[in-house]
Amino acid sequence: MHPFTSRPTASVAALGETRLIASIRRWLGTASPPAPFGIGDDCAVLPPSRSRQLLTVDPVIHGVHFDDSVLPRAVGAKLLKRNLSDLAAMGGRPAAAVISLALAPQVKLAWLEAFYRGLAVTARRFRVPIVGGDVATQPGGLVATLTLLGEVAGPRVLTRTGARTGDRIFVTGVLGGSLASGHHHRFIPRLAEGAWLARQSGVRSLMDVSDGLAKDLPALTPAGARAELNTATLPRRRGCDVRAALCDGEDYELLFALNGKTETEKFQAAWRRAFPRTRLTCIGRFVQASRPRAADALRLDDYQGFEHLRELNGRKKAQAAQKQFGRKR
Amino acid sequence: MHPFTSRPTASVAALGETRLIASIRRWLGTASPPAPFGIGDDCAVLPPSRSRQLLTVDPVIHGVHFDDSVLPRAVGAKLLKRNLSDLAAMGGRPAAAVISLALAPQVKLAWLEAFYRGLAVTARRFRVPIVGGDVATQPGGLVATLTLLGEVAGPRVLTRTGARTGDRIFVTGVLGGSLASGHHHRFIPRLAEGAWLARQSGVRSLMDVSDGLAKDLPALTPAGARAELNTATLPRRRGCDVRAALCDGEDYELLFALNGKTETEKFQAAWRRAFPRTRLTCIGRFVQASRPRAADALRLDDYQGFEHLRELNGRKKAQAAQKQFGRKR
Repeated sequence: MHPFTSRPTASVAALGETRLIASIRRWLGTASPPAPFGIGDDCAVLPPSRSRQLLTVDPVIHGVHFDDSVLPRAVGAKLLKRNLSDLAAMGGRPAAAVISLALAPQVKLAWLEAFYRGLAVTARRFRVPIVGGDVATQPGGLVATLTLLGEVAGPRVLTRTGARTGDRIFVTGVLGGSLASGHHHRFIPRLAEGAWLARQSGVRSLMDVSDGLAKDLPALTPAGARAELNTATLPRRRGCDVRAALCDGEDYELLFALNGKTETEKFQAAWRRAFPRTRLTCIGRFVQASRPRAADALRLDDYQGFEHLRELNGRKKAQAAQKQFGRKR
Repeated sequence: MHPFTSRPTASVAALGETRLIASIRRWLGTASPPAPFGIGDDCAVLPPSRSRQLLTVDPVIHGVHFDDSVLPRAVGAKLLKRNLSDLAAMGGRPAAAVISLALAPQVKLAWLEAFYRGLAVTARRFRVPIVGGDVATQPGGLVATLTLLGEVAGPRVLTRTGARTGDRIFVTGVLGGSLASGHHHRFIPRLAEGAWLARQSGVRSLMDVSDGLAKDLPALTPAGARAELNTATLPRRRGCDVRAALCDGEDYELLFALNGKTETEKFQAAWRRAFPRTRLTCIGRFVQASRPRAADALRLDDYQGFEHLRELNGRKKAQAAQKQFGRKR
């Protein structure tokens, strides 16, 4: 659905701010607790947290993270789920979220209602109260920004650092083709898997794959090491080649390093018992950077994951890129 | 400073995402702790919180919350301060902030650097670590969204509800003329005052004035009551009439209800000892709505504070409104 309309009576401007906020509260329903624990005061009031806390923020932007082919309820769901994926990547569980909207007055009321209803369904499913927000106009476009507060689910928080040379590299699910397949809005954030991984002592570091393995894996790679990938085992979505699996991005899968001394088969058996329906693949390991490379070895530098702004150097390129949904996120 | 440039080499697109994020970390300096406590991992890790917590989000948008006449460092400062004002309005103190940017590739690097440096100075001043964020492109415009996490500073959190008929109404500082005077970006959020008010048992409810007293006061007014204002005592900024004081908005002052049984003079004397340089004015009281109104009484309904989208019903009006900076926030 196209989010904009030229009919004033069908636009958010027809309501004005006060009535729009009242509508938003109705659309969110039980996903938003009453003030001061939810929308309606200067801040939302949250209970104390005994665990260490996690905080992350990500937006969805029209023409960047979604286009007119994506249903607005899926856009609302995606906004929350991409933040939940960041939380999963630290072994966390959600506590509360706030959402800020910057929208052109021409945004369709029907679009916005479906967006919020999709967000509310997802918030209830993952037990994330939407506790506050802000609505403001901007001259054009549509930006929805969600900030997610969570807490560490277990005794340990997993970060991107901690992997060592000799560690094995694992990834969940399959990679590539996220946009064409609709995975970019249909994915289920790997919260249970992330919390489970944080409880396994052999797991040394964890992140989610959102910009493509080629761009994200270097963040997990320890100093003085390089990732030696087994291209044959790279789990690819149907119809995707190695390049797509490495570069497409928006996979929202978990990528982690397992201590080389951990018994891999035992670990994988435990995984299958915990998550019989979630594929887990060992895709390679970290080796010393100085170690000679096999002639047919994959060079990650030859591939580029998604990078905001990268292809936008110059106005013409920028305009071309705008039309090409999915190359910027 | 105009935030956009047609020279690609002077724009954020010249850097690309990875180098831009590295620059942002440099610009923030000590205002941003190292990962995983700051920028650099999937989430920021924060310590547990023993107190109840507070969460709020507010953006600054080009053409809405600032125009080219406002220096970019003041825009960065304003973004944090308007969120701090919301925290002050609950009697809270800040814990951490995250910031999400949606920007056109044509945004000037020099503008963005000054914006972040202004944000960093303000963050250090108010001891708010900037722990994370996101940078994404949007086809046009510039939206910066800050989410602020805080905690209740004392034993009590003050909300907008709790006032009763008979309570006196107080406001800090002076009202009106915020845009013309530059107050909208120069104001100091009333954190110390908010925390002090939360410790006074006579104070029943508290909020900040951001959309203008005429729009904000009804939120503090108890059911079955109306606000009887003493127009003569309304603290107005130099050059402002009553309408400007009631409607201009962006005052970022504190508005609260004091139990009618509290000895007002003692209360005001205590205030003067605590805040000798912050004006405090009793502007009226809440009376029963059924009580006859004096012929010359102020009717708040005759005045309208700022409301997003209100004047934007229809494209022509919207375009006219875009040009008129300050009528939308």
